[in-house]
Amino acid sequence: MCAALAAFLLCSCANAQDVKKLPQPRKAATMSLMDALSQRASVREFDPNREVDDATLSDLLWAACGVNRPESGRITAPSAINAQDIQVYVCRKDGAWLYRPADHSLLKISGEDLRGLVAGPQEFVRQAPVCLVLVSDQTKFGERRSASAKYGAMDAGYVSENICLACTALGLKTVPRAMMDAAKLTEALGLTADQLLMLNNPVGW
Amino acid sequence: MCAALAAFLLCSCANAQDVKKLPQPRKAATMSLMDALSQRASVREFDPNREVDDATLSDLLWAACGVNRPESGRITAPSAINAQDIQVYVCRKDGAWLYRPADHSLLKISGEDLRGLVAGPQEFVRQAPVCLVLVSDQTKFGERRSASAKYGAMDAGYVSENICLACTALGLKTVPRAMMDAAKLTEALGLTADQLLMLNNPVGW
Repeated sequence: MCAALAAFLLCSCANAQDVKKLPQPRKAATMSLMDALSQRASVREFDPNREVDDATLSDLLWAACGVNRPESGRITAPSAINAQDIQVYVCRKDGAWLYRPADHSLLKISGEDLRGLVAGPQEFVRQAPVCLVLVSDQTKFGERRSASAKYGAMDAGYVSENICLACTALGLKTVPRAMMDAAKLTEALGLTADQLLMLNNPVGW
Repeated sequence: MCAALAAFLLCSCANAQDVKKLPQPRKAATMSLMDALSQRASVREFDPNREVDDATLSDLLWAACGVNRPESGRITAPSAINAQDIQVYVCRKDGAWLYRPADHSLLKISGEDLRGLVAGPQEFVRQAPVCLVLVSDQTKFGERRSASAKYGAMDAGYVSENICLACTALGLKTVPRAMMDAAKLTEALGLTADQLLMLNNPVGW
């Protein structure tokens, strides 16, 4: 109930500056799935001087867990009992944003650059213009919570693989990581005890 | 050490009839990654009278966790510390087989049809000609085993999403499931205590 109240207050307090509508995903990358699988590889080197533009970010976030069936609100990634528990936070120089699949928008969570907390001791991560942080919102499992941390880990894998393959098709580089400064990142993102940090994907060119 | 010995004995005992070399993956499906993401959906209905042919199974298993960089033996799916811990068991009418990415072959594990154990109480699963069962081999994490059950769950998500997307591109149907008769399936597949059942994907037309 506390998390629901917090979510309600967060929504209620959001003003126009806090919400950034993403451009419609173009889905124009022509690379076949089989080629994306052939070329998928983890890369730990990024050009720190090239940003990820909004059109590319829009495609990437839609691929990760965007709505692919608007009539039912279902998304690109499966999840246990269709909980859709994985939340993607976008950490950039200009702050941290929560991706909201329902209206394909970003909600500002922090004005701080949190990429250093995502990096932890791994310096190369700080060169990535975007770090996507995957959180499992355990409240989405409702009553069926006995094994939901495990399900949250699986569900993060589904979303992270979509990110890895989309990066390949879009010409971006990424590497999935579990390492991060979890305690500080939890605080900086304002996560509740029900929101578990799972994985992150630094992304760049 | 026990698991390593068991694996050695398993390999040593395997004769020609127990190993089935798969045809080279065609990777010929032309569907783009973006279209596969657009069309990915969980389907729980299969034609029980149409088998999955070897050429299609070859593509599907390669997509799941096949070698995409022969020079290093790296595979289509990322894994924590590149442990490559996920093993895919193929359960069909003719028995159960372990997919071996290194030489893209199947090793026969059982002559029994184990799809009923994968189905558990869900009858629709018995209609699928193939059930892929994902197991995390925790010995692959070596000394770094403190959080490896969680990593195994994540790694299963990566492989299962590859299966979901490949099914979409190949015209197959699937749904990822965590439900199965775990105790009996563990015994029937001869899994050790280090091999954790994670997910399964029934697959069919």
